[in-house]
Amino acid sequence: MTIPTVQGFKFSAADGAIKAPGRNDCALIVSETPAHCAGVFTRNKVIAAPLIVSKPRIAAGQCQAVLINSGNANACTGEAGLEVARNSSATLAAALGIDDSLVAVASTGVIGVPLPLERLNGAIPTLCQGLAAENATAVAEAIMTTDSFSKTSCRTIEVGGKSCQVLAIAKGAGMIHPNMATMLGFVMTDAAVVPELLQPLLTKAVDDSFNSITVDGDTSTNDMVLVLANGAAGNTPIESGSRDADLLARAVEEVLLDLAKMIVRDGEGATKLVQIELCGANSDVEAKIAARSVATSSLVKTAFFGEDANWGRIIAAVGYSGVDVDPNKIDIFFDDVQVVSQGLTTGAQQEAVATEVLKKPEFRVTVDLHLGQGRAHYYTSDLTYDYVKINADYRT
Amino acid sequence: MTIPTVQGFKFSAADGAIKAPGRNDCALIVSETPAHCAGVFTRNKVIAAPLIVSKPRIAAGQCQAVLINSGNANACTGEAGLEVARNSSATLAAALGIDDSLVAVASTGVIGVPLPLERLNGAIPTLCQGLAAENATAVAEAIMTTDSFSKTSCRTIEVGGKSCQVLAIAKGAGMIHPNMATMLGFVMTDAAVVPELLQPLLTKAVDDSFNSITVDGDTSTNDMVLVLANGAAGNTPIESGSRDADLLARAVEEVLLDLAKMIVRDGEGATKLVQIELCGANSDVEAKIAARSVATSSLVKTAFFGEDANWGRIIAAVGYSGVDVDPNKIDIFFDDVQVVSQGLTTGAQQEAVATEVLKKPEFRVTVDLHLGQGRAHYYTSDLTYDYVKINADYRT
Repeated sequence: MTIPTVQGFKFSAADGAIKAPGRNDCALIVSETPAHCAGVFTRNKVIAAPLIVSKPRIAAGQCQAVLINSGNANACTGEAGLEVARNSSATLAAALGIDDSLVAVASTGVIGVPLPLERLNGAIPTLCQGLAAENATAVAEAIMTTDSFSKTSCRTIEVGGKSCQVLAIAKGAGMIHPNMATMLGFVMTDAAVVPELLQPLLTKAVDDSFNSITVDGDTSTNDMVLVLANGAAGNTPIESGSRDADLLARAVEEVLLDLAKMIVRDGEGATKLVQIELCGANSDVEAKIAARSVATSSLVKTAFFGEDANWGRIIAAVGYSGVDVDPNKIDIFFDDVQVVSQGLTTGAQQEAVATEVLKKPEFRVTVDLHLGQGRAHYYTSDLTYDYVKINADYRT
Repeated sequence: MTIPTVQGFKFSAADGAIKAPGRNDCALIVSETPAHCAGVFTRNKVIAAPLIVSKPRIAAGQCQAVLINSGNANACTGEAGLEVARNSSATLAAALGIDDSLVAVASTGVIGVPLPLERLNGAIPTLCQGLAAENATAVAEAIMTTDSFSKTSCRTIEVGGKSCQVLAIAKGAGMIHPNMATMLGFVMTDAAVVPELLQPLLTKAVDDSFNSITVDGDTSTNDMVLVLANGAAGNTPIESGSRDADLLARAVEEVLLDLAKMIVRDGEGATKLVQIELCGANSDVEAKIAARSVATSSLVKTAFFGEDANWGRIIAAVGYSGVDVDPNKIDIFFDDVQVVSQGLTTGAQQEAVATEVLKKPEFRVTVDLHLGQGRAHYYTSDLTYDYVKINADYRT
């Protein structure tokens, strides 16, 4: 895929020797002018140093540069770790000639090991020299940890006769390594927006994408998604509630959903991408809870791997999710093949047809509770031998 | 282990051809006189027919006979399934010459397949003829499904000069098959008790045992634990709040904890039994939530399998559990080897010593949050290749 340039944004990557040498492990995103910004951060109560430094800066509403390293999460590193995050950000700000408060920092990698400040700072001159509009792919590659492929997605929207780009970069392999495979996401757009537009837009887009995927239900100390809008496209700033705001929101939702699906597909050992559609719940919130219960059940996920249309495990996962359920009303489908009607099997023949659906690399499981209008979706993968192998052997 | 007889209780097992023929799959427990009773039932909102029939009867406080079948859960079987549970219980009551309301029924096995009434009823004459005080082991064997060994435990207590037996029988392989491996538990004692003693005693004992174990966090539609006390030992009935009540409570807690540990050890593919000790939480409830988060994390459990002292995964699981945490106060130990002090690593040397602890088949992980007095424990197993293999291949 050719990645379009986004006006006013430049990118670069460098080898800071934080990982084994020979691979880029530092990356930089810079906007020519301060961009409006918004962020979504991990809900884990153990929060890595770069998030502690960056959260209040993003909340202040403006950002011009993002410094990212892979190979070390700078998490559980105490006061020394905070100093590394603060000092590297100040070093970058000085090199770029901008205010320190306009720099965000992000890290991903091993937990509990000191991040060497001199290596991170040592990479900054190379990063600044290498900045170019075409280098987004190099950033996507440098921030990979356990990812088996780099992840980018883009959309173009028309706003008041101006063409605006929306480019997103992410890393993550299904959050299956909280000490190595943090989810990071960065959305850059040259659209001009009113400042208050971005936070609700990003929060909703993340809920429908990164917060609707699971490989194993673990949540890292370092998860972070940022959006930067620098207005370089020259459109009249997009107002909240306008048609253009809807256009931008849809574009951001689409690029983040693209990336979220890539992350599920890249879940180590995963062989299947499964969409859990939960409808007929009493509310959207209850639908999400029930969908998540199905999507995170080890038994359901091993049945997907075994290509077994084992609806008993799905109905049990809905039942113990805690949401309101009437077992005698539940319908379950694999793609369009109904295997459960009003809580009872539709018979061995239908189940045999459903087994064919499970042989596909991508399919949908629909659970209809027939209680109300609440609905939600969740993306998940199967649980495989390789998942256990990779995660058991990881540090040895 | 020789199982002592419990005065006034008889047991039997029979082959009802509900599973493949040639193995006992029906069992009966009978007290000579109506026993005081209490029960704890699944919290899954999808509840199997035998539980719907038995719950109100146990709640009424008296039980004289328990009819159990394996091979079929009689769950998600609709009105027809309820009729099978009611009819088989009436048939047994008639054969024993007791009131229908004194019979409890329990089932375990495949979900969603009709349970053949004629086979269950066909086994009842054999079950009644075979009743004997020495047959408890036959019951423990007949109720097995994916269990690789039968599970019984017993204690003797002295009450007012009388010797009272407490015998417990369970089946379950870590709840790793909700459509096959329901957890069932039955406690029989000949101690005389006041009726109101049993329910709070059982609820607490189950919380500290069966509700403190996990293999994969799934909860079945059929889980049930009953206690029956028939008073045949002839002691003065044990009053609530008395020293004898404490003695009985401790005996019930011990037999159920024995069985719970056997269930974790029998988790398919499990090679390790790990006790998660969570202390220093703001409350016992928060301690339990955090302990459960660690015990159910796929990443933590695969690290146990890989014998990797990966405390980053443990600290992350505590962090996302939702309870109050100050990362800078957390201590973590593998047995007595400290690997984390105030949120920071104690160094590579300590971690190497901890790795030796992880090579043992049984060890303890202690997480001290240093916030309050709340504490809880949880028993878990490792997540292995064999777990995936057994669960993926199960119905094929």
